[in-house]
This record gives sequence, structure tokens and C-alpha cells, in this order.
Amino acid sequence: MLENVKQKKTKKSDVQQTIEALRCELSELENVIKERKLPVIITFDGWSCSGKGSQIAKLIKYLDPRFFRVVSFRAPSASEKRKPWMTRYWEALPKKGELLFLDRSWYRDTVNAYMLGEIDKHQCKQRIADIKTFERQLTDDGCLIIKFFLHITKSEQEERLEKLADSSITSWRVEKSDSFNHDHYDKYLKHYDKMISETNTANAVWHIIPANDKTTAQLTVLDTVVNAIKCACAAAEKNAPYYEKSELPLSDNIPQKFKTESTQKLAEIDMDKSIDDETYEKQLKKWQDKLFELQNICYQKKIPVIVAYEGWDAGGKGGNIKRLASALDPRGYEVHPIAAPEPSELARHYLWRFWTRLENDGHFTIFDRTWYGRVMVEPIEKITPQKRADMAYQEINEFEKQLSDWGAVIVKFWINIDKDEQYRRFKERENTPSKRWKITDEDWRNREKWDEYEKAVDRMIEKTSTEFAPWTVIEGNDKKYARIKALKTIAKSISKKLEEQAK
Amino acid sequence: MLENVKQKKTKKSDVQQTIEALRCELSELENVIKERKLPVIITFDGWSCSGKGSQIAKLIKYLDPRFFRVVSFRAPSASEKRKPWMTRYWEALPKKGELLFLDRSWYRDTVNAYMLGEIDKHQCKQRIADIKTFERQLTDDGCLIIKFFLHITKSEQEERLEKLADSSITSWRVEKSDSFNHDHYDKYLKHYDKMISETNTANAVWHIIPANDKTTAQLTVLDTVVNAIKCACAAAEKNAPYYEKSELPLSDNIPQKFKTESTQKLAEIDMDKSIDDETYEKQLKKWQDKLFELQNICYQKKIPVIVAYEGWDAGGKGGNIKRLASALDPRGYEVHPIAAPEPSELARHYLWRFWTRLENDGHFTIFDRTWYGRVMVEPIEKITPQKRADMAYQEINEFEKQLSDWGAVIVKFWINIDKDEQYRRFKERENTPSKRWKITDEDWRNREKWDEYEKAVDRMIEKTSTEFAPWTVIEGNDKKYARIKALKTIAKSISKKLEEQAK
Repeated sequence: MLENVKQKKTKKSDVQQTIEALRCELSELENVIKERKLPVIITFDGWSCSGKGSQIAKLIKYLDPRFFRVVSFRAPSASEKRKPWMTRYWEALPKKGELLFLDRSWYRDTVNAYMLGEIDKHQCKQRIADIKTFERQLTDDGCLIIKFFLHITKSEQEERLEKLADSSITSWRVEKSDSFNHDHYDKYLKHYDKMISETNTANAVWHIIPANDKTTAQLTVLDTVVNAIKCACAAAEKNAPYYEKSELPLSDNIPQKFKTESTQKLAEIDMDKSIDDETYEKQLKKWQDKLFELQNICYQKKIPVIVAYEGWDAGGKGGNIKRLASALDPRGYEVHPIAAPEPSELARHYLWRFWTRLENDGHFTIFDRTWYGRVMVEPIEKITPQKRADMAYQEINEFEKQLSDWGAVIVKFWINIDKDEQYRRFKERENTPSKRWKITDEDWRNREKWDEYEKAVDRMIEKTSTEFAPWTVIEGNDKKYARIKALKTIAKSISKKLEEQAK
Repeated sequence: MLENVKQKKTKKSDVQQTIEALRCELSELENVIKERKLPVIITFDGWSCSGKGSQIAKLIKYLDPRFFRVVSFRAPSASEKRKPWMTRYWEALPKKGELLFLDRSWYRDTVNAYMLGEIDKHQCKQRIADIKTFERQLTDDGCLIIKFFLHITKSEQEERLEKLADSSITSWRVEKSDSFNHDHYDKYLKHYDKMISETNTANAVWHIIPANDKTTAQLTVLDTVVNAIKCACAAAEKNAPYYEKSELPLSDNIPQKFKTESTQKLAEIDMDKSIDDETYEKQLKKWQDKLFELQNICYQKKIPVIVAYEGWDAGGKGGNIKRLASALDPRGYEVHPIAAPEPSELARHYLWRFWTRLENDGHFTIFDRTWYGRVMVEPIEKITPQKRADMAYQEINEFEKQLSDWGAVIVKFWINIDKDEQYRRFKERENTPSKRWKITDEDWRNREKWDEYEKAVDRMIEKTSTEFAPWTVIEGNDKKYARIKALKTIAKSISKKLEEQAK
């Protein structure tokens, strides 16, 4: 594929006017992007010394720097390596109405990691799947992704490397990886080809730019960007998804199907389960000690543990989390209470605020309410249209699958109480001064929608109980029973992971 | 000082009930903290193996983990070293109404850095000054800081280290720095003494805890925390600052006086300055090229550059920033537009959102509006009481001094236009579709308060024009003149820094 790219020469003076006109158009489009709240990601990958940085610099020359960011990804740092590999790309996501320019993206990282032997063939394949999922999730959310591959020939690259190294001002810019890229040009070529053909999907097509000649590259990039933004804005106006045309063969981007486990409906749960005080104290100590021991092992083996708490208002999440947290070394966990999103969170994909809250591997990340708000409160309160919210079952399964691939133990709790018990607890909160902050008018309003919520919860559990991230419904009328069951479930899930690893 | 600490032995069964009662009290106090929106920082420093982690674990046992965080500071990472040294403590600040527990704080870091030869005597002194400033800024903002030093004797430390190393489960926990701490016990003792006596200030006193016996330590810590929170809540209710009593001699915490440079009032500025188009184009190229060159040098020498833009609405900040940004390699700068704070920002000290936005050294951090909102819009719009806002001149000088000590070039612009010119630009914006998003009713409202703002700006410039962070008023009626002056000022400031470094 790349080998067939025709390098062209363009005389600068011939196209100066065209370039100027396109730039003005781009500058105007920036206003449209802002109005339409369109998030735009423009990635630059390609050979070392193919001019990614300078192409970006030319492209942004007329843009308002308050509304775009340029992020330059180098080899992941030690601390970045302790998160799922896609975390740093999620973190960089632009707000709606803003542009993000990437100097190297998830593509270069993947090919490089493979070439340097940091990941094997299987992992490389996995990463390609992650990328496709990532890009689809973003474009489904209305994001425009424009992907450039700057192609230069081997001889051109050689010339540029020599020139850089010769100058005392620029020699520091030549990195080891640049020479490596050149020394293994043919092998890289093969892998770039493969990567491009596998990820040239209708929602995020590739643009291969002949970059031996800088003016040709500049013109092609500029023209592509202007055209893509115009088309995407037009599509957005019609509320239609935007698919770009491509001269290269398209690869599909069909969502992976996840097998779900059979689950019970909430109405079928036996809500009479309870535990006596003496047994509670004994079991509490037993499972807390066990968890402390397991935390130590997870820390050493760098196994991340994700615990997600959902449940009815006044279901006892707080007290439950307290028993979990107090079992653990406090340096090794973080509790994230999830409230209504802040403006900066609303301006991005709804999973953004969860991706950016993950602790390092070896640590526990505990969520008090989670990403499942997307399929419960959001459609019920009309914050998100039902149709869009329905897409979240798949997206969430994909998210959790990526956490699982990272090596995480994932435990998800629905703490269930019945309607009478909730009424009792609401009343108790109202009558206890120190608990009054816990009960608001909103809680009473939510209660009125009990049936609607119950249906949503049943559906959520049915659609997102996977082998790698199963739901555990906890019978919560007896708080003590609920706490023991939660601790035990977490401990057993971790032990299971350790056994699997030992195999 | 530490040598005179009496180690005590407490029988657990004797105090079990007291401990239980105190813990319940602490748990109740958590609600008061939430109601009063009191931020609480509790730091644990002390000898290696003095039991900091386990004391924190015991303390939080009854607290709701959704409202506190435990942060464990180890040696700063490579990326942390590229920011001002206090950045990571600022980043960790709790929200109002929440608790932060620190396992090692700025104290341990400072003594360790000195003992390891990473900083010299002078830098150590500077850090102590920074710490006092930091703690004063926080307590002035209503934060409660409780500082613990856990003291164990040399023989006790030896015993604990041996025990840790002997067990296969815990041996991985013994770090090199722990043995180093023990091997240099006497020298550390001297420095801890000095550090404690220098930073035992009325707004943040030290509590030295005899920690040979764990129960004694637990009881003393718990009692101190409960007492301090109670007193701080009582003081907060009376709207009075909280000063703790101390058995140790108090050190003062008098703010450093900054010499300010003589400045002009806005009314005295000659607003007729302008530039012709031809000169503009030439000068623009000249200074943009110069800045690109200087950026390269700053990157190599790891010199941070902070550019702060303030000015009248429609003063031309956007266009000015655009000319600066387009001169630079986009991988080496970040533009931060500063809008109204988000909830998570409002819940913290007003400088928090600026500390956490600083780029690495070697990079440009460009602010479109800044921390100076504190002394302009906030008192004028009654968001902050005038009295509290007035404290910001000193606080901001301190902030900028710390940036300067970090090595930063600091350039601050007030882009000045006159009232007629603003009217003309507002009208133009209203009449140009692509610029209409730039003008809002709020702009017109602000304009009505022109005189009030002018007074505030004059005062701000007078009080915060320091040698290390001087203001430059830019005559902005002619946008082109303004742009050239800005670029030139930045370039000259950087060149000056380079000359100073070369000396």
C-alpha cells in the first residue's frame, strides 16, 4: 500500500493562494466547530522525520490557540505503564467544540511497541481491536477523527536524519527511536501497511500523505482537514453520522459480541437473608483480614482491583464501602464518589471521567456510583435520549473488557433493598440530625420512579453481566449481611484471579 | 527537642474505652466538617518505621472513605521534578469539607532532599520559607492543618527494621531510604529538630508523638485530632481564625515583604501608539523567529516560561496570544483559557487551579486571564469579600516568587484600550456573524463598571509589579502595535534570564 504512494512535487508559488484560501476557510470553520460543539481529533502518524510536527505547526497557524491543543506522545512513562494502555489517549480527549492535534497517536505507539518487542503478536492484535473500539466509541459520540499517515521514502528519510544530526541546533532532536525506525524501514513498512489496512474504517478513515515534498504534504493535509470538517458539520446538522469516503479498501468495525451470563430479576431475589451480630463480627474480621492479605499480594503482583457500587438510594453503599476501605492499607486504594458531572466532564464522552479516575495497577479503585448512571438515571431523567443510552450496554462491556485485559479484577455490586425498607431508612435519616445531609428531595422524587428504575436495573444486569465483569446482587435489607457478602465476593474474585495466574 | 520526648507505655485495655469514645466523636465530627465546609489536612512525618501508615489506618477506621483521601508521598518522580517542588502538594489539596491524610509531607521531602545532597543549605532554607508560606495561605483560607511528628528512639527503630526485614511478607517494604534514615539517625535528629522549631507556627503547630509504644501514639494522635477539629469548627462558627496552642516555642510566620517597582496609572498611558502595516509584517517575522529560537534554548535549558494575559474585554488578547502561539513549536506550549471556576475548583484555594495547570519546565504556560481575577472581578462582582481579596496581593506575589525560584521567566500583560475603542469593537463584534460568540450581555454589564475596574487594575499593577514578575501595560488601541510589543517583551525577558544564567 505505502509502496504505491506517488510522491509529488508542488511548486510553492503555484499553490500559495490556494493554501491561503484554505487556511482562511479553516479559521472560519473553527467558529462552526465551536457552535456545533463538534469535538475534532486530528492524528499525525508516520515515519520518523516525516514532518509531523511541522505539518501540525502549519495547520494551526491560523487557529485560535485557546480552542485547540497539541499533544505529543512519546514512549509511555513508567507511571503511564501502570494504567491501561489507552488511558493517556482518553485523558487527552478534547472538549466538544475544540480540536486536538496529536503528534503520534495510539498507532505509532502500537507499532513501536511491537517492533521493540514490548508486545507480542497477540497483544498487538488486541491493541488494534482496542483502537477500533476506541475510535468507534468516539465517533458514535459525535467526534470527528481525521487520521494522517505521513509517508516518506527510505532515501528521503536518510537525507533528513543526516541533516538533523549535522546541525548543532537540531542534533538533540534526533532520538534513538528515529534511527531505529530508519534502520528497520522495510519491516516497519510492512507493519504500517498492515495497521492501516486493518484500521481504515468508515467512521475513521486513513489519509496517506506523500510527504517527501513539504508543500505537497501541506496542501493535501489542509485540503483534507477543511473538507472533512465541512462534511462532518453538515452531517451533524442533519443529525446523521459522518462517514468519510476512502480510496483505500475499507475494513469493518463491527462491535465484538459479549456473552452474558444468565441473571435473576430483582423481583426474584430472596430479600429475607440476614446474619446475627455474633456471626457478623466474626465474619467481618475474617474477610477483612483476608482482604488485607490479598491487597498486599495484588500490590506486589500489580493486579488492579476495580469495585463498582450501585444500588438503591439508602441501600447502604456508604457503610459497605467503609467496611471494605477500613480493611485495606489506605495507601493502596481510592474511593471515587460519582456525583453529577462537572462542566468539563459534560463536555466529553461520558466514559472520560471514569477512564481518568483509574488508579495504578496494584491498587483498588472503588466507585461509589459508576458509569452505569448512563443506563439508569440518564435516560430516566431525560438527560440522555433512550436510544443513545441503549448503546451504552455495548460500550460499557467494551470498557470493562479493556479493564479486564489490563489484568483487573472487576467486581460490580447492585445493593438491593425493597421499597418498604427504603421508606424506613429515608424516615430514619430525616429524624436523625447527623444523617439528615444524606436525604434530599431528589431521593423522594427518585423513589416515585421505583418501577421505572427497577426495569432499568434488570435490563442493565442482564446486558452487562459478563464473565470478566459479572454483577453481584446483594440482598441489602440486612446491612450486616450485605457487608459480609460484599467483602467475601471481592476476596473470592481476587483469589480466583490469583489461581488463574498461577496456572 | 526530640531527645527530650518522653516515651510512655500505655496498656491497651486501660484506654480501649477512651479510644472507642474518641473515635465515635471523630466520626460525628466528620459531619460537622462537611457542614462547615472545613478542609482538613493531617500530615504524618517522622522516622522511618515510626508507624505513620498504621497510625493513619487506625485513625480513618471509623471515617467515611468517600470524604477523605490518603496520599503517600514517596521520592518525587522524574516528571514531578519538572514542576515547582510544591506542585504535588497543591495538587493533593482536599475539597472544603473533606479530609486529607498525608503519609509523609513536604517536611520529610525537604529533610530527605537535604540529607541526600539534592539541595544545599540555601535551598533548604528557601523550602522552609515556601512551606511556611504554603501553610499560611491555606490556613488563611480556612484550612485546618494538623502536623504530627512520630518520634521513635534509635534502638526502637533498629528493632523494627530488623523485624520487617526478617519477615518474608514484609521485607519488600524496607526501602533503601529507611536504612539510610537509621544509619544517619543522629544527623537526622538534628535536622528534624531544626525543621520543627522553625515551622512551629501558631497557624500550624507541631505535635510530637512519642511512638515507641503504639497504643500511646494512637491515643495521643486521636485525642489531638478530635480536639483540633472541635476547636477549629468552633472558631469557624465565630468566623475567627484558628490558632492552636503549643507546648513548644512558637516560630513566627511573617509574610515576606516584596519590593514593588514604580508603575504608571492607566490614565497616564499614551494610547496613541501605533505601527504601520509594513513595519508590522517585518517586526512580526523578526520577533516570531526570535521567540522560536529562544523556545528551543529554553527547552534545552529547562527554563519554564509563564505568560499571563489580562486586559479589558475586547482588548485583543485572543489575537495577541495567537501570534505568540504560532511562533512556537506547538509541542512546547499550552494555552489555558481561564473561565469561571468549576465546582471542584471552587471547593479549593483559588490558587489551586493555577498551580495544577503549570506545564513542565522548558515549556511555555500561557494564561488567557489569570489568578488576578481574584483582585478584579471577584471583589467587584461580590464573589469574594473585598477584605479577603485584598490579601491576594501578598499571596500572588508569593506565588509568583515561587515560580521565579523554580527558574521561571514570568511575563504579565495588561492589554489596555480606551473606552471608545472598546465600544467600537463591541459594536463590530455584534455586527460580524463569525465574531458574535465573542460578545455577551456580561461584557456590556462589565463595561458599565469601567471606572471601578480601572481603579482595581491600577491598584493591582501597583501592588504586584515585582522585579521577578513585572507587569507590562500594552497600549492596545492598535492591535498590531500591541502584538509586536508583547512578542518583544517576552523575547527580551527570556534573553535577560539567559544572560543572568550565563553570569
